[in-house]
Amino acid sequence: MGRRNEHSREELREMALEAAGALVAEQGFRGLSARKVAAAIGYTVGSLYLIFRNLDDLILQLNARTLDQLYEALLTTRQDCSAPRDCLLALGQRYIEFARQHHHRWKLIFEHQLPPDQDLPPWYLERVSRTFELVQSQLQALAGPRSPRELTLAAHALWSGVHGICVLSLDEKLDLAGHLSPEEVADSLVAHYLEGFTASGPHSG
Amino acid sequence: MGRRNEHSREELREMALEAAGALVAEQGFRGLSARKVAAAIGYTVGSLYLIFRNLDDLILQLNARTLDQLYEALLTTRQDCSAPRDCLLALGQRYIEFARQHHHRWKLIFEHQLPPDQDLPPWYLERVSRTFELVQSQLQALAGPRSPRELTLAAHALWSGVHGICVLSLDEKLDLAGHLSPEEVADSLVAHYLEGFTASGPHSG
Repeated sequence: MGRRNEHSREELREMALEAAGALVAEQGFRGLSARKVAAAIGYTVGSLYLIFRNLDDLILQLNARTLDQLYEALLTTRQDCSAPRDCLLALGQRYIEFARQHHHRWKLIFEHQLPPDQDLPPWYLERVSRTFELVQSQLQALAGPRSPRELTLAAHALWSGVHGICVLSLDEKLDLAGHLSPEEVADSLVAHYLEGFTASGPHSG
Repeated sequence: MGRRNEHSREELREMALEAAGALVAEQGFRGLSARKVAAAIGYTVGSLYLIFRNLDDLILQLNARTLDQLYEALLTTRQDCSAPRDCLLALGQRYIEFARQHHHRWKLIFEHQLPPDQDLPPWYLERVSRTFELVQSQLQALAGPRSPRELTLAAHALWSGVHGICVLSLDEKLDLAGHLSPEEVADSLVAHYLEGFTASGPHSG
Protein backbone atom coordinates (compact mmCIF):
# COMPACT_ATOMS: atom_id res chain seq x y z
CA MET A 1 0.00 0.00 0.00
CA GLY A 2 0.94 3.63 -0.34
CA ARG A 3 3.25 3.17 -3.31
CA ARG A 4 2.01 6.36 -4.87
CA ASN A 5 5.28 7.31 -6.44
CA GLU A 6 5.46 4.21 -8.60
CA HIS A 7 2.87 5.43 -11.08
CA SER A 8 2.14 8.73 -12.73
CA ARG A 9 -1.11 10.48 -11.95
CA GLU A 10 -2.49 9.47 -15.35
CA GLU A 11 -1.48 5.83 -14.88
CA LEU A 12 -3.09 5.77 -11.47
CA ARG A 13 -6.29 7.26 -12.87
CA GLU A 14 -6.33 4.63 -15.60
CA MET A 15 -5.72 1.78 -13.15
CA ALA A 16 -8.43 3.01 -10.79
CA LEU A 17 -11.06 3.38 -13.52
CA GLU A 18 -10.16 -0.03 -14.88
CA ALA A 19 -10.50 -1.60 -11.42
CA ALA A 20 -13.76 0.25 -10.71
CA GLY A 21 -15.20 -0.94 -14.05
CA ALA A 22 -14.27 -4.53 -13.24
CA LEU A 23 -15.83 -4.29 -9.77
CA VAL A 24 -19.08 -2.92 -11.18
CA ALA A 25 -19.16 -5.49 -13.99
CA GLU A 26 -18.86 -8.27 -11.44
CA GLN A 27 -20.86 -7.02 -8.49
CA GLY A 28 -22.97 -4.11 -9.72
CA PHE A 29 -23.21 -0.63 -8.23
CA ARG A 30 -23.45 -2.01 -4.67
CA GLY A 31 -20.08 -3.71 -5.15
CA LEU A 32 -18.28 -0.43 -5.73
CA SER A 33 -16.47 1.48 -2.98
CA ALA A 34 -13.36 3.64 -2.81
CA ARG A 35 -11.87 1.11 -0.41
CA LYS A 36 -12.31 -1.77 -2.85
CA VAL A 37 -10.93 0.21 -5.78
CA ALA A 38 -7.89 1.24 -3.73
CA ALA A 39 -7.33 -2.35 -2.58
CA ALA A 40 -7.59 -3.66 -6.15
CA ILE A 41 -4.80 -1.38 -7.37
CA GLY A 42 -2.68 -1.66 -4.23
CA TYR A 43 -2.98 1.97 -3.16
CA THR A 44 -4.54 3.68 -0.17
CA VAL A 45 -7.90 5.39 -0.34
CA GLY A 46 -6.00 8.61 0.36
CA SER A 47 -3.97 8.18 -2.84
CA LEU A 48 -7.20 7.67 -4.77
CA TYR A 49 -8.48 10.99 -3.52
CA LEU A 50 -5.45 12.75 -4.91
CA ILE A 51 -6.76 11.74 -8.36
CA PHE A 52 -10.55 11.89 -7.91
CA ARG A 53 -12.41 14.53 -5.95
CA ASN A 54 -14.64 11.88 -4.41
CA LEU A 55 -16.42 8.64 -5.28
CA ASP A 56 -19.02 10.53 -7.35
CA ASP A 57 -16.24 11.98 -9.47
CA LEU A 58 -14.77 8.51 -10.02
CA ILE A 59 -18.19 7.12 -10.98
CA LEU A 60 -18.85 10.00 -13.40
CA GLN A 61 -15.51 9.34 -15.08
CA LEU A 62 -16.30 5.63 -15.26
CA ASN A 63 -19.75 6.38 -16.72
CA ALA A 64 -18.17 8.76 -19.23
CA ARG A 65 -16.06 5.82 -20.45
CA THR A 66 -19.13 3.62 -20.78
CA LEU A 67 -20.83 6.42 -22.73
CA ASP A 68 -17.77 6.65 -24.99
CA GLN A 69 -17.93 2.92 -25.62
CA LEU A 70 -21.67 3.13 -26.33
CA TYR A 71 -21.09 6.02 -28.71
CA GLU A 72 -18.40 4.06 -30.58
CA ALA A 73 -20.68 1.05 -30.84
CA LEU A 74 -23.57 3.12 -32.18
CA LEU A 75 -21.29 5.04 -34.55
CA THR A 76 -20.04 1.80 -36.09
CA THR A 77 -23.64 0.62 -36.47
CA ARG A 78 -24.60 3.86 -38.20
CA GLN A 79 -21.66 3.59 -40.56
CA ASP A 80 -22.80 0.10 -41.59
CA CYS A 81 -26.30 1.14 -42.69
CA SER A 82 -27.59 3.50 -45.33
CA ALA A 83 -31.35 4.17 -45.26
CA PRO A 84 -32.22 6.27 -42.19
CA ARG A 85 -35.10 3.98 -41.22
CA ASP A 86 -32.81 0.95 -41.28
CA CYS A 87 -30.20 2.89 -39.32
CA LEU A 88 -32.67 3.81 -36.60
CA LEU A 89 -33.86 0.22 -36.29
CA ALA A 90 -30.24 -0.96 -36.18
CA LEU A 91 -29.31 1.65 -33.55
CA GLY A 92 -32.15 0.38 -31.35
CA GLN A 93 -30.92 -3.18 -31.71
CA ARG A 94 -27.33 -2.16 -30.98
CA TYR A 95 -28.41 -0.31 -27.86
CA ILE A 96 -30.07 -3.49 -26.54
CA GLU A 97 -26.98 -5.54 -27.39
CA PHE A 98 -24.72 -3.06 -25.62
CA ALA A 99 -26.93 -3.01 -22.52
CA ARG A 100 -26.89 -6.79 -22.40
CA GLN A 101 -23.12 -7.05 -22.93
CA HIS A 102 -22.24 -4.44 -20.34
CA HIS A 103 -25.25 -4.87 -18.12
CA HIS A 104 -23.94 -3.53 -14.79
CA ARG A 105 -21.78 -0.78 -16.26
CA TRP A 106 -24.64 0.35 -18.48
CA LYS A 107 -27.02 0.28 -15.50
CA LEU A 108 -24.62 2.40 -13.44
CA ILE A 109 -25.15 5.33 -15.82
CA PHE A 110 -28.79 5.39 -14.68
CA GLU A 111 -28.42 4.24 -11.09
CA HIS A 112 -25.85 6.81 -10.09
CA GLN A 113 -27.23 10.06 -8.74
CA LEU A 114 -25.16 13.11 -7.93
CA PRO A 115 -26.04 14.92 -4.70
CA PRO A 116 -29.05 17.19 -5.38
CA ASP A 117 -26.99 20.38 -5.27
CA GLN A 118 -24.58 19.23 -7.98
CA ASP A 119 -24.98 19.49 -11.74
CA LEU A 120 -23.48 17.11 -14.27
CA PRO A 121 -20.23 18.62 -15.62
CA PRO A 122 -20.12 19.86 -19.24
CA TRP A 123 -17.69 17.11 -20.36
CA TYR A 124 -20.29 14.57 -19.25
CA LEU A 125 -23.28 16.28 -20.87
CA GLU A 126 -21.29 16.56 -24.09
CA ARG A 127 -21.06 12.76 -24.23
CA VAL A 128 -24.79 12.35 -23.72
CA SER A 129 -25.70 14.86 -26.39
CA ARG A 130 -23.42 13.51 -29.10
CA THR A 131 -25.11 10.13 -28.64
CA PHE A 132 -28.52 11.74 -29.12
CA GLU A 133 -27.10 13.59 -32.10
CA LEU A 134 -26.55 10.23 -33.84
CA VAL A 135 -30.26 9.47 -33.56
CA GLN A 136 -31.42 12.97 -34.41
CA SER A 137 -29.40 13.19 -37.60
CA GLN A 138 -31.04 9.98 -38.84
CA LEU A 139 -34.48 11.30 -37.91
CA GLN A 140 -33.76 14.46 -39.85
CA ALA A 141 -32.56 12.47 -42.86
CA LEU A 142 -35.75 10.40 -42.70
CA ALA A 143 -38.33 13.06 -42.08
CA GLY A 144 -37.03 16.13 -43.88
CA PRO A 145 -37.02 19.58 -42.33
CA ARG A 146 -38.28 19.62 -38.77
CA SER A 147 -37.69 22.05 -35.98
CA PRO A 148 -34.82 21.16 -33.62
CA ARG A 149 -37.44 20.74 -30.89
CA GLU A 150 -39.43 18.17 -32.90
CA LEU A 151 -36.25 16.21 -33.56
CA THR A 152 -35.22 16.36 -29.91
CA LEU A 153 -38.66 15.21 -28.85
CA ALA A 154 -38.65 12.30 -31.31
CA ALA A 155 -35.11 11.25 -30.35
CA HIS A 156 -36.06 11.27 -26.67
CA ALA A 157 -39.27 9.34 -27.28
CA LEU A 158 -37.43 6.65 -29.27
CA TRP A 159 -34.50 6.43 -26.92
CA SER A 160 -36.62 6.35 -23.76
CA GLY A 161 -38.78 3.70 -25.36
CA VAL A 162 -35.90 1.42 -26.31
CA HIS A 163 -34.32 2.11 -22.93
CA GLY A 164 -37.53 1.04 -21.17
CA ILE A 165 -37.52 -2.21 -23.15
CA CYS A 166 -33.90 -2.84 -22.10
CA VAL A 167 -34.56 -2.11 -18.43
CA LEU A 168 -37.61 -4.35 -18.26
CA SER A 169 -36.09 -7.12 -20.29
CA LEU A 170 -32.72 -7.27 -18.50
CA ASP A 171 -34.49 -7.26 -15.15
CA GLU A 172 -36.81 -9.94 -16.52
CA LYS A 173 -39.92 -7.84 -16.09
CA LEU A 174 -40.85 -7.71 -19.78
CA ASP A 175 -43.28 -10.24 -21.14
CA LEU A 176 -43.70 -12.39 -18.11
CA ALA A 177 -45.22 -15.08 -20.30
CA GLY A 178 -41.91 -15.33 -22.14
CA HIS A 179 -43.03 -15.07 -25.75
CA LEU A 180 -41.50 -11.77 -26.82
CA SER A 181 -37.86 -10.81 -27.19
CA PRO A 182 -36.67 -7.27 -26.42
CA GLU A 183 -35.35 -7.07 -29.99
CA GLU A 184 -38.81 -7.73 -31.38
CA VAL A 185 -40.51 -5.25 -29.06
CA ALA A 186 -37.92 -2.59 -29.92
CA ASP A 187 -38.40 -3.15 -33.65
CA SER A 188 -42.15 -2.76 -33.25
CA LEU A 189 -41.66 0.41 -31.22
CA VAL A 190 -39.19 2.06 -33.58
CA ALA A 191 -40.88 0.97 -36.83
CA HIS A 192 -44.38 2.12 -35.85
CA TYR A 193 -43.12 5.32 -34.28
CA LEU A 194 -41.24 6.21 -37.45
CA GLU A 195 -44.26 5.48 -39.63
CA GLY A 196 -46.29 7.86 -37.51
CA PHE A 197 -43.53 10.46 -37.30
CA THR A 198 -42.93 10.61 -41.05
CA ALA A 199 -46.66 10.50 -41.87
CA SER A 200 -47.49 13.35 -39.54
CA GLY A 201 -45.48 15.95 -41.45
CA PRO A 202 -43.45 18.81 -40.00
CA HIS A 203 -44.52 20.87 -36.99
CA SER A 204 -47.02 18.39 -35.65
CA GLY A 205 -44.71 17.39 -32.86
CA MET B 1 -43.15 -6.97 21.43
CA GLY B 2 -44.48 -10.46 21.01
CA ARG B 3 -48.14 -9.53 21.49
CA ARG B 4 -49.19 -11.90 18.78
CA ASN B 5 -52.51 -12.83 20.35
CA GLU B 6 -53.81 -9.28 20.24
CA HIS B 7 -54.55 -9.30 16.52
CA SER B 8 -55.96 -11.83 14.11
CA ARG B 9 -53.75 -13.21 11.39
CA GLU B 10 -55.53 -11.06 8.81
CA GLU B 11 -55.19 -7.91 10.94
CA LEU B 12 -51.49 -8.58 11.41
CA ARG B 13 -51.02 -9.09 7.68
CA GLU B 14 -52.81 -5.83 7.00
CA MET B 15 -50.73 -3.93 9.60
CA ALA B 16 -47.48 -5.36 8.27
CA LEU B 17 -48.23 -4.51 4.64
CA GLU B 18 -49.33 -1.04 5.65
CA ALA B 19 -46.10 -0.51 7.62
CA ALA B 20 -43.94 -1.94 4.82
CA GLY B 21 -45.61 0.36 2.30
CA ALA B 22 -44.95 3.38 4.50
CA LEU B 23 -41.29 2.38 4.97
CA VAL B 24 -40.78 2.01 1.22
CA ALA B 25 -42.61 5.25 0.46
CA GLU B 26 -40.29 7.09 2.85
CA GLN B 27 -36.96 5.36 2.40
CA GLY B 28 -37.19 3.30 -0.79
CA PHE B 29 -36.37 -0.39 -1.22
CA ARG B 30 -33.17 -0.07 0.83
CA GLY B 31 -35.22 1.15 3.78
CA LEU B 32 -37.23 -2.04 3.98
CA SER B 33 -36.35 -4.93 6.30
CA ALA B 34 -38.31 -7.51 8.28
CA ARG B 35 -36.84 -6.03 11.44
CA LYS B 36 -38.13 -2.54 10.66
CA VAL B 37 -41.59 -3.78 9.68
CA ALA B 38 -41.81 -5.82 12.89
CA ALA B 39 -40.67 -2.85 14.98
CA ALA B 40 -43.19 -0.54 13.28
CA ILE B 41 -46.13 -2.76 14.25
CA GLY B 42 -44.78 -3.73 17.66
CA TYR B 43 -44.29 -7.41 16.91
CA THR B 44 -41.25 -9.67 16.72
CA VAL B 45 -39.71 -10.72 13.43
CA GLY B 46 -40.72 -14.25 14.40
CA SER B 47 -44.40 -13.24 14.49
CA LEU B 48 -44.04 -11.69 11.05
CA TYR B 49 -42.79 -14.99 9.70
CA LEU B 50 -45.92 -16.72 10.90
CA ILE B 51 -47.80 -14.59 8.36
CA PHE B 52 -45.30 -14.26 5.49
CA ARG B 53 -43.07 -17.04 4.24
CA ASN B 54 -40.14 -14.63 4.03
CA LEU B 55 -39.32 -11.04 3.08
CA ASP B 56 -39.77 -11.82 -0.63
CA ASP B 57 -43.30 -13.00 0.08
CA LEU B 58 -44.06 -9.80 1.98
CA ILE B 59 -42.66 -7.68 -0.87
CA LEU B 60 -44.67 -9.58 -3.48
CA GLN B 61 -47.84 -9.00 -1.49
CA LEU B 62 -46.97 -5.32 -1.15
CA ASN B 63 -46.27 -5.07 -4.87
CA ALA B 64 -49.57 -6.82 -5.61
CA ARG B 65 -51.31 -4.02 -3.69
CA THR B 66 -49.48 -1.40 -5.68
CA LEU B 67 -50.50 -3.20 -8.87
CA ASP B 68 -54.11 -3.24 -7.67
CA GLN B 69 -53.95 0.48 -7.04
CA LEU B 70 -52.40 1.07 -10.47
CA TYR B 71 -55.10 -1.05 -12.06
CA GLU B 72 -57.84 0.93 -10.32
CA ALA B 73 -56.28 4.21 -11.42
CA LEU B 74 -56.01 3.07 -15.04
CA LEU B 75 -59.52 1.59 -14.99
CA THR B 76 -60.97 4.91 -13.84
CA THR B 77 -59.04 6.68 -16.59
CA ARG B 78 -60.38 4.28 -19.18
CA GLN B 79 -63.93 4.77 -17.98
CA ASP B 80 -63.56 8.52 -18.43
CA CYS B 81 -62.58 8.40 -22.11
CA SER B 82 -64.35 7.13 -25.21
CA ALA B 83 -62.23 7.05 -28.40
CA PRO B 84 -59.58 4.30 -28.09
CA ARG B 85 -56.79 6.62 -29.23
CA ASP B 86 -57.69 9.16 -26.56
CA CYS B 87 -57.91 6.37 -24.00
CA LEU B 88 -54.44 5.07 -24.84
CA LEU B 89 -52.97 8.57 -24.60
CA ALA B 90 -54.78 9.10 -21.28
CA LEU B 91 -53.60 5.73 -19.93
CA GLY B 92 -50.00 6.72 -20.70
CA GLN B 93 -50.46 10.01 -18.87
CA ARG B 94 -52.08 8.29 -15.90
CA TYR B 95 -49.22 5.81 -15.68
CA ILE B 96 -46.74 8.68 -15.40
CA GLU B 97 -48.87 10.39 -12.78
CA PHE B 98 -49.13 7.18 -10.76
CA ALA B 99 -45.37 6.57 -10.94
CA ARG B 100 -44.73 10.11 -9.77
CA GLN B 101 -47.27 9.95 -6.91
CA HIS B 102 -46.10 6.59 -5.63
CA HIS B 103 -42.50 6.81 -6.75
CA HIS B 104 -40.79 4.37 -4.37
CA ARG B 105 -43.62 1.88 -4.18
CA TRP B 106 -43.94 1.88 -7.97
CA LYS B 107 -40.18 1.45 -8.30
CA LEU B 108 -40.22 -1.51 -5.92
CA ILE B 109 -42.29 -3.51 -8.44
CA PHE B 110 -39.30 -3.34 -10.78
CA GLU B 111 -36.43 -3.34 -8.29
CA HIS B 112 -37.48 -6.45 -6.44
CA GLN B 113 -36.11 -9.71 -7.80
CA LEU B 114 -37.11 -13.14 -6.60
CA PRO B 115 -34.27 -15.64 -6.15
CA PRO B 116 -33.43 -17.12 -9.59
CA ASP B 117 -35.01 -20.49 -8.80
CA GLN B 118 -38.41 -18.99 -7.94
CA ASP B 119 -41.25 -18.08 -10.28
CA LEU B 120 -43.79 -15.34 -9.71
CA PRO B 121 -46.96 -16.86 -8.25
CA PRO B 122 -50.15 -17.01 -10.39
CA TRP B 123 -52.02 -14.47 -8.22
CA TYR B 124 -49.24 -11.99 -8.98
CA LEU B 125 -49.08 -12.67 -12.74
CA GLU B 126 -52.85 -12.31 -12.89
CA ARG B 127 -52.52 -8.72 -11.68
CA VAL B 128 -49.91 -7.92 -14.29
CA SER B 129 -51.92 -9.37 -17.15
CA ARG B 130 -55.19 -7.64 -16.33
CA THR B 131 -53.34 -4.33 -16.46
CA PHE B 132 -52.02 -5.20 -19.92
CA GLU B 133 -55.51 -6.31 -20.86
CA LEU B 134 -56.71 -2.72 -20.34
CA VAL B 135 -54.24 -1.51 -22.96
CA GLN B 136 -54.80 -4.40 -25.34
CA SER B 137 -58.56 -3.99 -25.46
CA GLN B 138 -58.11 -0.35 -26.48
CA LEU B 139 -55.59 -1.34 -29.14
CA GLN B 140 -58.05 -3.86 -30.48
CA ALA B 141 -60.87 -1.31 -30.52
CA LEU B 142 -58.59 1.09 -32.39
CA ALA B 143 -56.99 -1.20 -34.92
CA GLY B 144 -59.66 -3.79 -35.68
CA PRO B 145 -58.95 -7.49 -35.89
CA ARG B 146 -55.37 -8.38 -35.06
CA SER B 147 -53.83 -11.55 -33.84
CA PRO B 148 -53.46 -11.84 -30.04
CA ARG B 149 -49.70 -11.83 -30.61
CA GLU B 150 -49.78 -8.51 -32.50
CA LEU B 151 -51.84 -6.97 -29.73
CA THR B 152 -49.52 -8.32 -27.04
CA LEU B 153 -46.51 -7.00 -28.92
CA ALA B 154 -48.05 -3.55 -29.35
CA ALA B 155 -49.16 -3.38 -25.72
CA HIS B 156 -45.66 -4.32 -24.57
CA ALA B 157 -44.01 -1.82 -26.89
CA LEU B 158 -46.25 1.01 -25.69
CA TRP B 159 -46.01 0.11 -22.02
CA SER B 160 -42.23 -0.41 -22.09
CA GLY B 161 -41.89 2.88 -23.89
CA VAL B 162 -43.94 4.86 -21.40
CA HIS B 163 -42.24 3.00 -18.57
CA GLY B 164 -38.82 3.99 -19.94
CA ILE B 165 -39.91 7.63 -20.02
CA CYS B 166 -41.04 7.36 -16.37
CA VAL B 167 -37.84 5.71 -15.22
CA LEU B 168 -35.61 8.25 -16.93
CA SER B 169 -37.68 11.22 -15.95
CA LEU B 170 -38.15 10.32 -12.28
CA ASP B 171 -34.43 9.61 -11.96
CA GLU B 172 -33.80 12.91 -13.76
CA LYS B 173 -31.99 11.28 -16.65
CA LEU B 174 -34.44 12.37 -19.34
CA ASP B 175 -33.75 15.51 -21.27
CA LEU B 176 -30.74 16.76 -19.43
CA ALA B 177 -31.22 20.15 -21.01
CA GLY B 178 -34.58 20.42 -19.24
CA HIS B 179 -36.87 21.38 -22.09
CA LEU B 180 -39.13 18.33 -22.37
CA SER B 181 -41.64 16.98 -19.90
CA PRO B 182 -42.25 13.23 -19.56
CA GLU B 183 -45.92 13.87 -20.41
CA GLU B 184 -44.95 15.42 -23.73
CA VAL B 185 -42.48 12.67 -24.61
CA ALA B 186 -45.08 10.00 -23.74
CA ASP B 187 -47.72 11.69 -25.91
CA SER B 188 -45.29 11.79 -28.81
CA LEU B 189 -44.43 8.12 -28.30
CA VAL B 190 -48.00 6.87 -28.01
CA ALA B 191 -49.47 9.10 -30.73
CA HIS B 192 -46.86 8.27 -33.36
CA TYR B 193 -46.80 4.60 -32.47
CA LEU B 194 -50.58 4.38 -32.86
CA GLU B 195 -50.48 6.16 -36.22
CA GLY B 196 -47.97 3.61 -37.42
CA PHE B 197 -49.78 0.68 -35.87
CA THR B 198 -53.15 1.53 -37.38
CA ALA B 199 -51.66 2.45 -40.77
CA SER B 200 -49.72 -0.79 -41.05
CA GLY B 201 -52.82 -3.01 -41.18
CA PRO B 202 -53.25 -6.44 -39.61
CA HIS B 203 -50.53 -9.05 -39.52
CA SER B 204 -47.62 -6.72 -40.08
CA GLY B 205 -46.55 -6.97 -36.47
